[in-house]
Amino acid sequence: MQTGFRPVSHKHVVLEDAFWAPRQEINRTVTLSIEYEHLKETGRIDALRLDWKPGTPNAPHIFWESDVAKWIEAAAYVLARHPDPELERRVDEVVELLRRAQQTDGYVNVHFTLVEPGKRWSNLRDWHELYCAGHLIEAAVALYEATGKRTLLDVMRRYADCIAEVFGPQPGAKQGYPGHEEIELALVRLTHATGDRRYIELSRVFVDRRGTSPNYFEAEAAARGEDPAAVRERLHYWQAHCPVREQTTAEGHAVRAMYLYCAMADLVAETGDRLREACERLFVNVTDRRMYVTGGVGSNAEGERFTRDYDLPNDTAYAETCAAIGLVFWMARMLQLDCDTRYADILERALYNGTISGVSLDGKRFFYVNPLAVHRTPEQLAGKTDANERFAGVRREWFGCACCPPNIARMVAAVGRYFYSAAPGELAVHLFGESRATVEIDGRPVAVTQQTRYPWDGTVRFGLDPGPSTRRFGFRIRVPGWCPGATFRINGRTHTPEMLRGYARLEREWRAGDVIECSFPMPVRRLYAHPRVRFDCGRAAFQRGPIVYCFEGTDNGNGLEEVSVPRDASLKPQWEPNLLGGVVVLRGRGKRLRQASGTRRLYSMEPPDEEWVDLQAVPYCVWENRELGDMQVWIRETPAD
Amino acid sequence: MQTGFRPVSHKHVVLEDAFWAPRQEINRTVTLSIEYEHLKETGRIDALRLDWKPGTPNAPHIFWESDVAKWIEAAAYVLARHPDPELERRVDEVVELLRRAQQTDGYVNVHFTLVEPGKRWSNLRDWHELYCAGHLIEAAVALYEATGKRTLLDVMRRYADCIAEVFGPQPGAKQGYPGHEEIELALVRLTHATGDRRYIELSRVFVDRRGTSPNYFEAEAAARGEDPAAVRERLHYWQAHCPVREQTTAEGHAVRAMYLYCAMADLVAETGDRLREACERLFVNVTDRRMYVTGGVGSNAEGERFTRDYDLPNDTAYAETCAAIGLVFWMARMLQLDCDTRYADILERALYNGTISGVSLDGKRFFYVNPLAVHRTPEQLAGKTDANERFAGVRREWFGCACCPPNIARMVAAVGRYFYSAAPGELAVHLFGESRATVEIDGRPVAVTQQTRYPWDGTVRFGLDPGPSTRRFGFRIRVPGWCPGATFRINGRTHTPEMLRGYARLEREWRAGDVIECSFPMPVRRLYAHPRVRFDCGRAAFQRGPIVYCFEGTDNGNGLEEVSVPRDASLKPQWEPNLLGGVVVLRGRGKRLRQASGTRRLYSMEPPDEEWVDLQAVPYCVWENRELGDMQVWIRETPAD
Repeated sequence: MQTGFRPVSHKHVVLEDAFWAPRQEINRTVTLSIEYEHLKETGRIDALRLDWKPGTPNAPHIFWESDVAKWIEAAAYVLARHPDPELERRVDEVVELLRRAQQTDGYVNVHFTLVEPGKRWSNLRDWHELYCAGHLIEAAVALYEATGKRTLLDVMRRYADCIAEVFGPQPGAKQGYPGHEEIELALVRLTHATGDRRYIELSRVFVDRRGTSPNYFEAEAAARGEDPAAVRERLHYWQAHCPVREQTTAEGHAVRAMYLYCAMADLVAETGDRLREACERLFVNVTDRRMYVTGGVGSNAEGERFTRDYDLPNDTAYAETCAAIGLVFWMARMLQLDCDTRYADILERALYNGTISGVSLDGKRFFYVNPLAVHRTPEQLAGKTDANERFAGVRREWFGCACCPPNIARMVAAVGRYFYSAAPGELAVHLFGESRATVEIDGRPVAVTQQTRYPWDGTVRFGLDPGPSTRRFGFRIRVPGWCPGATFRINGRTHTPEMLRGYARLEREWRAGDVIECSFPMPVRRLYAHPRVRFDCGRAAFQRGPIVYCFEGTDNGNGLEEVSVPRDASLKPQWEPNLLGGVVVLRGRGKRLRQASGTRRLYSMEPPDEEWVDLQAVPYCVWENRELGDMQVWIRETPAD
Repeated sequence: MQTGFRPVSHKHVVLEDAFWAPRQEINRTVTLSIEYEHLKETGRIDALRLDWKPGTPNAPHIFWESDVAKWIEAAAYVLARHPDPELERRVDEVVELLRRAQQTDGYVNVHFTLVEPGKRWSNLRDWHELYCAGHLIEAAVALYEATGKRTLLDVMRRYADCIAEVFGPQPGAKQGYPGHEEIELALVRLTHATGDRRYIELSRVFVDRRGTSPNYFEAEAAARGEDPAAVRERLHYWQAHCPVREQTTAEGHAVRAMYLYCAMADLVAETGDRLREACERLFVNVTDRRMYVTGGVGSNAEGERFTRDYDLPNDTAYAETCAAIGLVFWMARMLQLDCDTRYADILERALYNGTISGVSLDGKRFFYVNPLAVHRTPEQLAGKTDANERFAGVRREWFGCACCPPNIARMVAAVGRYFYSAAPGELAVHLFGESRATVEIDGRPVAVTQQTRYPWDGTVRFGLDPGPSTRRFGFRIRVPGWCPGATFRINGRTHTPEMLRGYARLEREWRAGDVIECSFPMPVRRLYAHPRVRFDCGRAAFQRGPIVYCFEGTDNGNGLEEVSVPRDASLKPQWEPNLLGGVVVLRGRGKRLRQASGTRRLYSMEPPDEEWVDLQAVPYCVWENRELGDMQVWIRETPAD
């Protein structure tokens, strides 16, 4: 099944908006450089020289290549539109190191070449060889597509061939699959870049084998002399508890799950696979049971994993940046299967909230963990840091396990790819933002511009230019799920479009200069969680357009549990050009508990007094960019006054 | 300073009430036996035979003697009023083992005699020699006072003398003090039993040395080759961060803190020490900043410790049973310093709630940790247990670290001691319950009876019998802090008594047959926590008389965060003779959130519906005695409807 819709490459989408454009600029000019420095300083790049000696410190780690690969991928996306000789030189150097690090049989992994040379492919469950290979393949494809340079692509094809020899569909091959999914989706990209469908076939083999009996991870453990029963109990951690097409709930490590689901969706698009049903079931389970309102997924730090339906604690939320990014990747792929705003709504929710919260406005600090509430101790407010770098509710410059920083860099650099899809005779727009794009429809370009202050304002003015002659195609414009009633005008005349799975579809003979004006009203909305989310009972979250808000102590005073917002109190949007890079804040009146009549007793028969206070909410994605304080997304709600 | 008030021994108070009497009976007939069996099965008793050999399993642990000692102490309290030849034989056997285990120099500790023989007194901070000694001394005193048998008392005097030779006030002695306080209060009891004030002096030395510079624990660590700086950071864990008389906040391990504060109060009573101010400061800090409404203290599992003011999470509450018991011990001692209902209120709160919750109604299972909210997972509800025995919100039969079960046994067996105090010309009653007591005032007995259904009803009828002739003394009756307006009648005539620190003081020529009727109205009360207790903002707890209530899933359905009680909804008391051993429950109407109009979406712009539901609250102390479910003390409150 080729459903037809394909994303329009980020190369062809020039964002000039107030949200993504400055973030792309910071990403390009700041983040990429400092990430390169961290990769250098920590030895991740120089490890590729293969000059580590046993007995010396800083042995190359099993997942170091993945960090380097994501940085190359991010750099490639940048280079696709911003020639930068210095960056290109750095990339070329690293690529050259990778080329030289490749073994004669095609294998690429410094750890298992130098540190544990006898152990190649002996623990697919825990060791990240195939995961690193996947990221290197993605980097290779991105670099090739951006620059036309084939060196890394050739290296990685050789490596993919090497992997296929070991794990391919041929008789006698190992029946394994990765403990950390990633290569499955990368192999699909490799087919796209090379036209060689053997890579998609290898991807399918990896996906279909997962969780089948006899279980490979159990057998592999037994071969290492471990107790397979101990593995059996934990198979859901690796999404290997049953065949993927039988999986109904999102289980285990969230990033792994997201990357697996990406590959499953890819295989549906490529092969019409019956994995479609599993994708849809997992989508419903994740988004209607196991996802934060920010688009964060994987609520539990222990195992960085999914837990149970409705188990979404706010202050101990894990919601790893990489997992939200993985959700964006997955939703983009689901949108290829079906141009349905259900997927785009989730994509947009994660993109504007739980992913981009992962990087500071200055591009230098990163969240690994994205809590929805932080209550800081006096010690933390005094600047004493937690022992665990991931959990402080403070963005850090780097991590020992540094997956998130380069992941966010590659997402931001290529965020333009989520704006449009094209299919024969169809153009779909999923996201909004001031921009210029060129989209190929039926082999011929159409120029599309957006004039808008989105996400701060819901008016979007599309300009179409199909070239000198008119062209007939369907123009699908997503109506966001948060929008209470969109209106459309074509060349100034009101139009009531056909609605197709949440998209307004306008089909006509388009001509240059056609203008479509969409108005997506953006009232401030309260969201309520399902009551089974016990952490949110009696609480509301605020959203306007795609932006989820939070209350920070720096605006409202700390101790935010004392604060409540009456149900009939309105928070009003206000554009603040000089705050946090320019944001719409929400302002209004709420209440704060005060101990009754000055008593300092711990327990009192008198209810606390409530006093009216001014409140200000800021977008969740920009929290922790000012002085350190408390934060809450879900605020107590009191009934109408 | 001898303040005069002394507790009336439990030996002279016969409880016949519906709350404590059945618990004492279960404690005597069930708990003591099963605890003995656990002590036997785990090797704790047989270890005293000194026949463990290096290289064999189950090496005697450094704190095993303390568990045995608390069991002896509990048995002694039982034997004081219930002759039981079989129990006495078991006690005698264990005492004989202890006698034989004593070393020629008086030392008693199996671990440091057999397992690490060279390490005696080398790590006072972590190793529990002095702690065990303290519990053995308490057991010896209790046994002597109960039975007149001197064997264990003599053994422990020799041990105390041995300890005094090492740590006493004499020049050249070691300047150490225990890492786990206990011996300090035990030495005071040893003076009471023997009249030898050297033991009080040793107690004073231990208490006064604590936290002074140079710090002993640092020096000791350095002597073991450890980094003293690492110790310095953690000194508050052992209440050794500054001299005790300078301490202003309750810090560190809660049980240790409570036992220390007990000794401090003892030393004030015995020596008029200036520690009085520190005791009062710590009392205010604990009870107005760091105590659960149940009387639980030590909110944090990591270190079983106090944390910060107002840091009282409900579901992760530690609130160790032993710490609440320690709070009872401390408050009883504060009551000797000042017959003030502030102390008795806390004593009663802990006694009826956070201590006695530690044992099941059948006397066979124990809580180590006493949470104020439990939200069980489907797996837990299906009976799958947590790995950690302490944290499941399920009472267990025993623990590897088994301090709580025998501690609760000794507290229950001797609970009568908290009812009365006597001073020259004064008799004070602190607690209420159907009972008969004989109190010595000025050397002559007065019989006091209480007729009451307390704690389920607030009417108490005292009968006094001072003997054949009239006697003049002050009779102080505590008016509980929860009581909104007590009334008194003497021999049927209304009386408005003098109030003295919360006690009604009735002084007259009492004669046999005098009857004082007190009425303590017991309305159902809502308690509100200080708003800085962020976990309780927008919530209320229910209390009636001294009993704190909770909501159990088995009565109200699980998912109790969905439940709220409107501020004007009244919960009515109802006596249920056949429920949970006979309790007053609270019943009324509340509300439960239901997802709006059948939607199953995770986030909705529609607030959830609320429906009226019947609610029932049961005393916190008897929760988890029926089918497994959720539980909450602090329930969401919604404004008046």
